[in-house]
Amino acid sequence: MTGWIAVAGLGPGDDALVTPEVTAALDQATDVIGYIPYVARVAPRPGLVLHPSDNRVELDRARHALDLAAAGRRVVIVSSGDPGVFAMASALFEALEAAGADPDIRILPGITAMLAAAARAGAPLGHDFCAINLSDNLKPFALVEHRLRHAARGDFAMAFYNPRSRSRPEGFARVLEILREECEPGRLLIFARAVSTPDEALQIVTLADAHPAMADMRTVVLVGNSATRRVGRWVYTPRSAGVA
Amino acid sequence: MTGWIAVAGLGPGDDALVTPEVTAALDQATDVIGYIPYVARVAPRPGLVLHPSDNRVELDRARHALDLAAAGRRVVIVSSGDPGVFAMASALFEALEAAGADPDIRILPGITAMLAAAARAGAPLGHDFCAINLSDNLKPFALVEHRLRHAARGDFAMAFYNPRSRSRPEGFARVLEILREECEPGRLLIFARAVSTPDEALQIVTLADAHPAMADMRTVVLVGNSATRRVGRWVYTPRSAGVA
Repeated sequence: MTGWIAVAGLGPGDDALVTPEVTAALDQATDVIGYIPYVARVAPRPGLVLHPSDNRVELDRARHALDLAAAGRRVVIVSSGDPGVFAMASALFEALEAAGADPDIRILPGITAMLAAAARAGAPLGHDFCAINLSDNLKPFALVEHRLRHAARGDFAMAFYNPRSRSRPEGFARVLEILREECEPGRLLIFARAVSTPDEALQIVTLADAHPAMADMRTVVLVGNSATRRVGRWVYTPRSAGVA
Repeated sequence: MTGWIAVAGLGPGDDALVTPEVTAALDQATDVIGYIPYVARVAPRPGLVLHPSDNRVELDRARHALDLAAAGRRVVIVSSGDPGVFAMASALFEALEAAGADPDIRILPGITAMLAAAARAGAPLGHDFCAINLSDNLKPFALVEHRLRHAARGDFAMAFYNPRSRSRPEGFARVLEILREECEPGRLLIFARAVSTPDEALQIVTLADAHPAMADMRTVVLVGNSATRRVGRWVYTPRSAGVA
């Protein structure tokens, strides 16, 4: 048996958003590795070994996958959303570089949280946009601030992943302060929580009314650009939006 | 019969990347509207009317969908990739605002081209990144330049959609010049053409070696950030990448 690794995006939660490519990889797998709640989304079956692990052990998971593939196993590393967006794909390549191995690897894209959230709200990312990971586990907050200011001055719409951590809740309050320095008070924000799951909740507010407590670790925050507007219950960014 | 509109993302080309949600909407549709090559991806069946149209008539398409839904039809507007990323969702809301209607609308996300391309290359968008539409059909090139410089100075990875148009091929040459002013010559670029189709082709080059002719209208261009690197045949951006 020749081993392989597939890093697969399970999408935001609803099985109707899992691609047939990912479903096929899971059907062929001998082992599934990932963060506990993502592995819990994979149906058990005979011959499939599930390896759920806790948060923040991405490199351990990646090394485990490399070891299993070297032993001939067919391994799917599951991420929520898309594996290339603040998820397991980069961690696998970091481990690969350190290990000097060359196994058969495929990255299988998925519906990333910001696009699922944008779809629920309308089309807030309908023009140029940025995706920023607000978690400062792996980068200094100064870099977050630097990128935020450039994104705002470039009049990009924005999507924030991991806006609020238990260990450092004040970070997102600072993000809102920076946005208030850079953008007008009427700028539209969308707090999209657990989109496509039974816990889904959407809040649309202006920057003036935004509050840090509107976000938790299951929330993606979208920020419109200067032209983003409402029509009925929807929020969209016109295709011709923005001025230099 | 109560009409509705679904704006559906067909992904980059391979049917294995179409979500079950989109497939279900197409199964229920009475009418499919979209750009000719995207409508061509939908299998004909009795009771389904296909309305292929030429490029650059997005608002006409959106108004047509509103009219059909008002008449009780079940309409799917098809986009490639994700409908909210430089595609039909924004055009629908523009038409909705002008029409003052309030039909049943759903936006169904899809695998957008930059994430399919990133997956093929490794994980070049594994840290903060921007998506920029280089087409200047609907915005001045000065705005493209403004955003490019902020994206580069913020050390974002970047994804460029519509890099090269027949009507204005010199625009992308100017984009490369701006990148050369802002970034080091060894910066990694990925030219990803027609990912997940039989015409797929991937080129990985440094900024010094990049040439405008490497992109055409079926190409998405990915630009790494300052920390993006190669490991074997892969390109990835470390999760801790970048400095303020």
